[in-house]
Amino acid sequence: MTNRIRHLLIGPPLPTQQLVHERLNKIRALASFSPDALSSIAYANQEIYLGLLVAGSAGLALAWPTALAIAGLLLLVALSYFQTIAGYPSGGGSYAVARENLGTLPGLVAAAALSMGYLLTAAVSLTAGVEALASAFPALWPYRVTVALLLLALITLLNLRGLRETGTLMAVPVYLFLFVYFSLLAYGLVRLWSEGVGSLAVVAPPPSEPLTVLLVLHTFSAGCTALTGIEAISNGIPAFHAPQVRNAQRTLVVMALLMALLFLGSVGLTQSLAVIAGPEETILSALARRLVGSGPGYLLIQLSTMLILTVAANTSFAGFPRLVALVARDGFLPRQLAGLGDRLVLANGILLLAIATGVLVVVFGGDTHALVPLFAVGVFLAFTLSQAGMVVHWRRQQGRGWFLKSTINGVGALATGLAVAVIGVSKFLEGAWITILVIPLLVVVFLQIRVHYREVARQLSLQGVALSNPTPAAPRVVIPISGVHRGIVDAIDYARSISGDVTAVYIELEPGSGERIREKWEAWWPHVPLVVLPSPYRSIVGPLLDYLDRTDEEHSDGQLATVVLPEFVPARWWHGLLHNQTAWLIKAALLYRRRHHGYQRAIVDVPFHLAR
Amino acid sequence: MTNRIRHLLIGPPLPTQQLVHERLNKIRALASFSPDALSSIAYANQEIYLGLLVAGSAGLALAWPTALAIAGLLLLVALSYFQTIAGYPSGGGSYAVARENLGTLPGLVAAAALSMGYLLTAAVSLTAGVEALASAFPALWPYRVTVALLLLALITLLNLRGLRETGTLMAVPVYLFLFVYFSLLAYGLVRLWSEGVGSLAVVAPPPSEPLTVLLVLHTFSAGCTALTGIEAISNGIPAFHAPQVRNAQRTLVVMALLMALLFLGSVGLTQSLAVIAGPEETILSALARRLVGSGPGYLLIQLSTMLILTVAANTSFAGFPRLVALVARDGFLPRQLAGLGDRLVLANGILLLAIATGVLVVVFGGDTHALVPLFAVGVFLAFTLSQAGMVVHWRRQQGRGWFLKSTINGVGALATGLAVAVIGVSKFLEGAWITILVIPLLVVVFLQIRVHYREVARQLSLQGVALSNPTPAAPRVVIPISGVHRGIVDAIDYARSISGDVTAVYIELEPGSGERIREKWEAWWPHVPLVVLPSPYRSIVGPLLDYLDRTDEEHSDGQLATVVLPEFVPARWWHGLLHNQTAWLIKAALLYRRRHHGYQRAIVDVPFHLAR
Repeated sequence: MTNRIRHLLIGPPLPTQQLVHERLNKIRALASFSPDALSSIAYANQEIYLGLLVAGSAGLALAWPTALAIAGLLLLVALSYFQTIAGYPSGGGSYAVARENLGTLPGLVAAAALSMGYLLTAAVSLTAGVEALASAFPALWPYRVTVALLLLALITLLNLRGLRETGTLMAVPVYLFLFVYFSLLAYGLVRLWSEGVGSLAVVAPPPSEPLTVLLVLHTFSAGCTALTGIEAISNGIPAFHAPQVRNAQRTLVVMALLMALLFLGSVGLTQSLAVIAGPEETILSALARRLVGSGPGYLLIQLSTMLILTVAANTSFAGFPRLVALVARDGFLPRQLAGLGDRLVLANGILLLAIATGVLVVVFGGDTHALVPLFAVGVFLAFTLSQAGMVVHWRRQQGRGWFLKSTINGVGALATGLAVAVIGVSKFLEGAWITILVIPLLVVVFLQIRVHYREVARQLSLQGVALSNPTPAAPRVVIPISGVHRGIVDAIDYARSISGDVTAVYIELEPGSGERIREKWEAWWPHVPLVVLPSPYRSIVGPLLDYLDRTDEEHSDGQLATVVLPEFVPARWWHGLLHNQTAWLIKAALLYRRRHHGYQRAIVDVPFHLAR
Repeated sequence: MTNRIRHLLIGPPLPTQQLVHERLNKIRALASFSPDALSSIAYANQEIYLGLLVAGSAGLALAWPTALAIAGLLLLVALSYFQTIAGYPSGGGSYAVARENLGTLPGLVAAAALSMGYLLTAAVSLTAGVEALASAFPALWPYRVTVALLLLALITLLNLRGLRETGTLMAVPVYLFLFVYFSLLAYGLVRLWSEGVGSLAVVAPPPSEPLTVLLVLHTFSAGCTALTGIEAISNGIPAFHAPQVRNAQRTLVVMALLMALLFLGSVGLTQSLAVIAGPEETILSALARRLVGSGPGYLLIQLSTMLILTVAANTSFAGFPRLVALVARDGFLPRQLAGLGDRLVLANGILLLAIATGVLVVVFGGDTHALVPLFAVGVFLAFTLSQAGMVVHWRRQQGRGWFLKSTINGVGALATGLAVAVIGVSKFLEGAWITILVIPLLVVVFLQIRVHYREVARQLSLQGVALSNPTPAAPRVVIPISGVHRGIVDAIDYARSISGDVTAVYIELEPGSGERIREKWEAWWPHVPLVVLPSPYRSIVGPLLDYLDRTDEEHSDGQLATVVLPEFVPARWWHGLLHNQTAWLIKAALLYRRRHHGYQRAIVDVPFHLAR
């Protein structure tokens, strides 16, 4: 039943040999790796606008310089990753680079920061996408959480099925987005040329806060989310056609230029046309509406924004499971996260991400602006560690031009490190504290998990273990019975097949019932002894455990008696509600009882299947 | 750990012999059985007020006649139960009376109706109690659901501990309530005499609905909730001192008179003083405030109202578990509901009631007025069936004066039956439909459960079963292993102790890993054969089941191989998250696999306890 539903939703299992690695040409590679990076302009624009709006028209006039600074940082970081591609042609994720060059601890910090980054990319992209849609259809505005959760469920399901055709499928929204936005920007320039620069002083609301350095830093740090996603290509080099490094580098250059153009273009136009957003609308939506009205053109723009943001959320569903699988393979996360599922996808990682994203969306009420402070810290910390790792990498290699390469990565690391500090301080109370708290917590969890696995491995070692070569003696057997009926026949037969020493035990919940049972018992199994145990506290498990302890001690061989449990198996799951789950309770009590003098107690289930 | 918390909250287990039956004198008996009945005036008053208010002052003028009609019905029903006490001195609950005299089906309908009644008594008493409190402290008004749930948790906990001192403990709120309210009514009469009758026309809001017959019927049926709880004494006769019947009857008369006086007194005063309630206040609170102001006297009145309503909710926690235990003993409900728990209380029934009540409180937003339509149907249906059962009872007995007795019960049945019809029709859309739907559903569930138990009993019968007298042959044993390590040593030893035919099975998730395992295996257990199974779909359970089926078929004896599972038991529960729950998955798959050619497969757990 559950299997049938599962097959319907996510498809039948796939054999391992179907696992193939796609190779992408540059056109499809750009589509595969850029959605997160390109779509960043949706929330980065919004953050700059909201950050400066509180300082009125004087604040909004600083949008363009802020955007220029961010674009400069973007190109710097792109240059740094350009080098990472050459240094790690096998795909140097921040975790691998930091762990290899800086050591385990920085590697784990990078892993924690990256995990948070993936998680927040998914959450922020989803909510920003829904906001783009709800700007066009204001009736959806109050239902943003619900819409985001529905989208999330859809993405999760598609990923559990395994998205085989990713490259091609993603190309549509990405190129649609590029086409629509560049057309919009071009048209905007024409309009600006014909209309002239607008006056912010006329349209902006009066300032509610003074224009301080801190406010600008605030805005800058929130706007830095424009850089998110720029590292994607450096993780995915093996997916490129040969020559892989050159193709990946060229794709990175194209992507970085597109990002910078889109970002500067949209911020610049918004400011020079003096666009102000309504209460339930994003600033990008306001810019589009100002230029093309509210007709089909506007709807196409909003739709393409939502689509690319959804695809961006989807990239987390590829990256996050792969990251946690790597970390799990190194023994820092539960092993279940490392195994391929039925459909050759990392199903547990996908589910983990889906649940965490859903929680974030609900807790933050589907509000992108509330999520951004958590976002930037993680992403920039991962940037910094990855680039610092590259500095060490070049120094160690001492190859041609290592000093220049090292310096470029060093400047990148410094710049993003500075950004981490700015974001961490200026956005601390608004949510950055959560990320700052969670990252070290995650690192502690990683380390604890490895301690556990190592300890288990030590306990599982066969070194020094002496095997008992002669055949061990047959065990004593105890069978708890609930009465004399058909359901215990097979269990008694089985017990007699494995041992000559079988005792049945009846626990007398109702005083006096023992005698009736004994009579019936002796009619059927006269040669098997029956022990009746009183139970003053009406518990079955307690008297049974006491009896086992007592008799185990009496037997000097030190072997613990085997417990054979006749277990009812109902024909339908809900029938289980109609029976005391006694066998289950006994099993749980026996299984979780700590080892006794170094011996283990075997527990035997003999099922009795009730017919339908 | 969980045990420690449990002992702290509900106390250590109690032995069966501590189960004693208290005997109550009339003073304490009245306190034990009357809270539900007496406290009914809180919501009945409110229902009459809210029902008539919509028709303005002309509507409110009908409060007194409506109350008179309800009081008449009350005395009629009390007379009928007066007789039931004589007819069923062992305590004739509606279920027992209806089942014995009318048959199984009417008995089950009564059981379903009573269950709903108990459930709604708990929910309505709680919410009405919280409303009384929140009338005095308006800051609590928005948090009524939370306060009600906290009270519910407290009552549940006390009942799980076992309320030994019920009689004495309950006497305080009951007699406080009687003292406070009769003082209030007496003072109200003095004020009425000195001030004269007030004019409703002056204070009532303009009518929003016309005053129709249906509206009056509506109000009458909602006001009938004043009768709830009147049957309590007839269920509890064994708790009285001898002569039991006479003492119980006298207590019933006193209780019915108190109920009628309180009800008529409060409705009458409210109307003649022309009291109108504010928006976040009950009408009883408004009456009290009108008479004594908002000082400490008023607070005492509200507090005593809340207390008696809480005690009334508590009476459901005695009655409901006893009812479901009776029904469960007859095989119509899961047996787990019939067993005494650790603390000699019917813990499962208490928990079931607590959960259901909590759900009702949350779903209906803690609003008494929304719950009442569900309430009255169930209660009156149980009244009707019980009295109809008594009619048959007297006819069958043909004792002295049977005709008169039969007629009195018949008139009671007719009157309450008529009330069921009125309530069912007039309140259908407002919620009565839920009860009308749930009662037959419950009856169907009851019957299905008995069908299941009878079928199980048939399958468990030993009739015609032939026992195999010679010792059965030792089983073949299959051990699935996850690798060659310390964790499987005990399992292999155990397998060898019960059988000479042991085969280990390794499922090769990673292609090629089988060879490494085989080498290590042969170094340690050269005499035990190892089978390596490929797993193209990366499943452990699938290939294992296939292998078992294949080898079981090859062995012509028809016996199924025993599966011995080496099972890791982690030292702390959360360590379980770090291991694949493979043993558990295999057990579940084997246990729930349908019987194979009539044979059962034994499953042996050999735990390997990891040290801390």
